[in-house]
Amino acid sequence: MNVQVTQSNLAKALNNVARVSTSRAGLPILNNILLRTEANGLIIAATNLEIASVQRVGAKVTTQGSITVPAKIISEFVSNLPKENVTIEVKGQIIHISSGKHKSTINGMSDEEFPELPALDEKTQLQYELRTNDFKVAAGQTVITASTDSTRPVLTGVYWHTFEGSLYFAATDGYRLSEKRIMQAKTDIAAIIPTTTIQEVVRVLDDSEDTMGVFFDETQVKFQIGDNEIISRLIDGNFPDYRQLIPSTTSSSCIVAVDELKRIVKLSGLFARESGGSVQLETDPDTNILTIHSIASELGQNTSEISTDIEGEKNSITLNSRYLNDALGVLSSNEITIGFSGSLSPCLIRPNEKNSDYTHIVMPIKS
Amino acid sequence: MNVQVTQSNLAKALNNVARVSTSRAGLPILNNILLRTEANGLIIAATNLEIASVQRVGAKVTTQGSITVPAKIISEFVSNLPKENVTIEVKGQIIHISSGKHKSTINGMSDEEFPELPALDEKTQLQYELRTNDFKVAAGQTVITASTDSTRPVLTGVYWHTFEGSLYFAATDGYRLSEKRIMQAKTDIAAIIPTTTIQEVVRVLDDSEDTMGVFFDETQVKFQIGDNEIISRLIDGNFPDYRQLIPSTTSSSCIVAVDELKRIVKLSGLFARESGGSVQLETDPDTNILTIHSIASELGQNTSEISTDIEGEKNSITLNSRYLNDALGVLSSNEITIGFSGSLSPCLIRPNEKNSDYTHIVMPIKS
Repeated sequence: MNVQVTQSNLAKALNNVARVSTSRAGLPILNNILLRTEANGLIIAATNLEIASVQRVGAKVTTQGSITVPAKIISEFVSNLPKENVTIEVKGQIIHISSGKHKSTINGMSDEEFPELPALDEKTQLQYELRTNDFKVAAGQTVITASTDSTRPVLTGVYWHTFEGSLYFAATDGYRLSEKRIMQAKTDIAAIIPTTTIQEVVRVLDDSEDTMGVFFDETQVKFQIGDNEIISRLIDGNFPDYRQLIPSTTSSSCIVAVDELKRIVKLSGLFARESGGSVQLETDPDTNILTIHSIASELGQNTSEISTDIEGEKNSITLNSRYLNDALGVLSSNEITIGFSGSLSPCLIRPNEKNSDYTHIVMPIKS
Repeated sequence: MNVQVTQSNLAKALNNVARVSTSRAGLPILNNILLRTEANGLIIAATNLEIASVQRVGAKVTTQGSITVPAKIISEFVSNLPKENVTIEVKGQIIHISSGKHKSTINGMSDEEFPELPALDEKTQLQYELRTNDFKVAAGQTVITASTDSTRPVLTGVYWHTFEGSLYFAATDGYRLSEKRIMQAKTDIAAIIPTTTIQEVVRVLDDSEDTMGVFFDETQVKFQIGDNEIISRLIDGNFPDYRQLIPSTTSSSCIVAVDELKRIVKLSGLFARESGGSVQLETDPDTNILTIHSIASELGQNTSEISTDIEGEKNSITLNSRYLNDALGVLSSNEITIGFSGSLSPCLIRPNEKNSDYTHIVMPIKS
């Protein structure tokens, strides 16, 4: 194998795939990145058996071949080379990399034991095209409410599904829930994508691609972003019927500025550490004040208020300030509508804008 | 006690002193910040018994008094308040803090057990005035070579001393050494300041003060930066006669660009991890090439070269790439002169400029 490739393309490709390689799975070869020539380029790939990341790079191929090489050293090495051409030559299992006055040899391993790269079943394949920015926003707004508890696998993913002609993302860990409408969709689907896959896709997105292709078969999903493909297994199982948890009305609601609410949630949260984040919210339509209150028996206590028009009745609810803070951190609007229905019903948060496409609910802490 | 103070002044003062407060020393009161009124202001102070940080803030004092309050909660709380006036009122040992619609109570402790704030002996006091930027640069260029090994306390500090009419900083951990000339000085001094004190002073420096006062008595140093005073004990003992370790000549030397040398040190360092950072440098006056070479038995190896005029003879030396990297990271010049005198003598690094005021030496690894 003998190829020439530009440093910037090679560095980007190696960095895109390197994070997928892993030392966890007990197979040393998964620490390695696969380099394999094709007609006018190089395939660069890594897999941890759950996610595979495959990148194509244009290259001048003098001799065909393939090899695997430890992910960390080659990606760090190439990242630090000057922006010139890089020559990769493989002799036996030794990779010779040179660029200008830099020459390295890295000990590789044959690709024989490298797992076969996954491919989707083209017969059953469904296809979506999304704006990368829409995907990024929706991913950020939903992954925060996914579970990290592996005993209920279906909750550790983002639920990619259609409902009444639209494509939605949703995620819930049982304590909070988020739902984002993405766009109209003609093809129906219901699939659960692992949160780690969504995060990996977000990580490789850059400003160079406006749109991305997303493909599904029965068991896998493939994200096509420019020259990069990320293929992942789907999570097996049925996502809970979460729509019934979203309240259709609330008994009191108000509009508040996100920044102001963020501030008082943060201030209150300082006194809520020893109570696991518990803060108490109260709405009072007589005074038109939203109050947030927290107590730490050792440290002291805090009360902060926001003046705003309160519609409906008096309400009091105990929430986890960290969950509120997470929700406020992913909103793209300046104002939200926040609604309550007593101390046992979820708190409903929506951007204060027409045709809002995002819903976030936080379950109360029963005190 | 009842005072009013602006949020920005109070937040800055609390943040400046809070980091000094500590939970390590076994005295719970050292977790706390002292708040004490004076005629037209507030003294805010913290100490860990080695370093004390004292800050004066202008305030409208209605009732005199003093109290101590947990450092972390009050500094985080005040930092998150809006930029308005903050009222602090103490009732018993409870601190009531209010600002606009935010009201908190924090449980304080009486100041009776708070250590007395240190003061310098004014009779034996020596005084220096420095430009804050000079101090910052000199601190950054020397603390990196100080030791972290508490078995030789004198090496864990920066040696603040005069020599032939100039003030110098120096520090060495036995493996490398740095020396910076600061300015002319009429008053002779030899004092060892703990590295942690120097770092604390650097941390509170901001662009608002051009100059700073530094005062010494027999056992203590005081840094006066605007309204902030940091007082620290000095390290007891004699700093080694380090000047004899700086070679007056080298048997070969060359001028190299800092960025280029940084790159090849980093590339080589990738292959030097399992050898504890060992890289081999060679100068060849016949080819005018500086070579850097490293080997990792498992991973592979690297050779990188820099073309430059080599003066003197062939040389080969084994150095720790991390030490080289540290040295290159603090240089303010674009080019350096690097000199060698065989495999057993230190490598000498100086900025390539007239009247360079900085010297850095790295001892070889004896292989």
